[in-house]
Amino acid sequence: MSIPIPTVKRLPSYLRILTQRKELGEDHISATLLAEELGLKPIQVRKDISLTGIEGKPKVGFEIDKLIKCIIHVLGWDNTTDALIVGAGHLGSALARYDGFSAYGLRIVAIFDKDQEKIGKKIGDLLVRPMEDLNSYIAENRISIAVITVPALQAQAVSDLLVKCGIRGIWNFAPKDLKVPCNVVLQRTDLATSFAVLSVKLGRKIQDEDELLDDFDMI
Amino acid sequence: MSIPIPTVKRLPSYLRILTQRKELGEDHISATLLAEELGLKPIQVRKDISLTGIEGKPKVGFEIDKLIKCIIHVLGWDNTTDALIVGAGHLGSALARYDGFSAYGLRIVAIFDKDQEKIGKKIGDLLVRPMEDLNSYIAENRISIAVITVPALQAQAVSDLLVKCGIRGIWNFAPKDLKVPCNVVLQRTDLATSFAVLSVKLGRKIQDEDELLDDFDMI
Repeated sequence: MSIPIPTVKRLPSYLRILTQRKELGEDHISATLLAEELGLKPIQVRKDISLTGIEGKPKVGFEIDKLIKCIIHVLGWDNTTDALIVGAGHLGSALARYDGFSAYGLRIVAIFDKDQEKIGKKIGDLLVRPMEDLNSYIAENRISIAVITVPALQAQAVSDLLVKCGIRGIWNFAPKDLKVPCNVVLQRTDLATSFAVLSVKLGRKIQDEDELLDDFDMI
Repeated sequence: MSIPIPTVKRLPSYLRILTQRKELGEDHISATLLAEELGLKPIQVRKDISLTGIEGKPKVGFEIDKLIKCIIHVLGWDNTTDALIVGAGHLGSALARYDGFSAYGLRIVAIFDKDQEKIGKKIGDLLVRPMEDLNSYIAENRISIAVITVPALQAQAVSDLLVKCGIRGIWNFAPKDLKVPCNVVLQRTDLATSFAVLSVKLGRKIQDEDELLDDFDMI
């Protein structure tokens, strides 16, 4: 059974709440409470969870332990996935050291750069490797996921190279819309788009209030 | 005139392509070419651009310089916005040093943490400040945007504090669904959700191919 992507997107949030509740010593949770914590409708939460195959009990709700295990399995986070990073700039270095990934089964095992001054230096526990080693590293370590944190102008060339080396999943942080073959999965995290939405919404809110103030002035 | 948020989300991509083309020495671009570069439909691009008030000319298309200026203005990126970061961990430090923000008018001017070992240390050009100084700093420097990079369990308390100090826009990187009053704009960038989608899609693709191979075996 294939779980729809909008549900997949909500699963990490359920997982967070469930883990928090578990840490508080609780063993069951209701769909209503989960919905409340996340600002969702209870019917949505019930539908999402039923898609994972877990059933709740009347009055007590869902068994937290069982639901956590099930969500982790659905997301494929029960097997640790090794990934590498290309681009040892500020963002790449940060992601290489970021300890939040392990919670979702992602382990950064290598970082590559073409800059001679960066190669050989240490970022956390990882040595920065030269691009020439990329192909053999991917083959020898059977890496399927790569994170791209190079500048926009180099991102497509790096992506093409990764695909040629056998990478099947690309997580792109470069501000560039990449083209990949249809057998490769591309996910993008774009800080510019997030900030665009934030600044436009904020601008509108402040403008609305100013207009409201103007109206008061006229009274 | 209020530009719809889906259009706002595409504007940074247009801006990137336009800037690249400008650097190549070009002065006009067609909606068809913009659409092609971004994998969008030309009619979508034309609609988005017409919402900014810019008109193209038949055969030559849009004037690149004019369109760049207009998009930057619509996004409010022509005025530099000062923002502060709360949470000087790996992600917070990386964002403090990240030089990609300046392209969209965001300047990180301060970083705060409650950890005595971090306070007073330098991250790039910024000193890590104690949480006790947050209120006065926001008031004195008229900061309206804050970036949250603290652990999930502390995120809501930090958000409440920021709102109390007068922050109007919150960019949340903590894996936590925050509740803010309706006069505050909240934007979330969640690495867990992005990776969830990537790993589920990749898992499905590999499974589909395995099944395809199984089918071949049976022939």
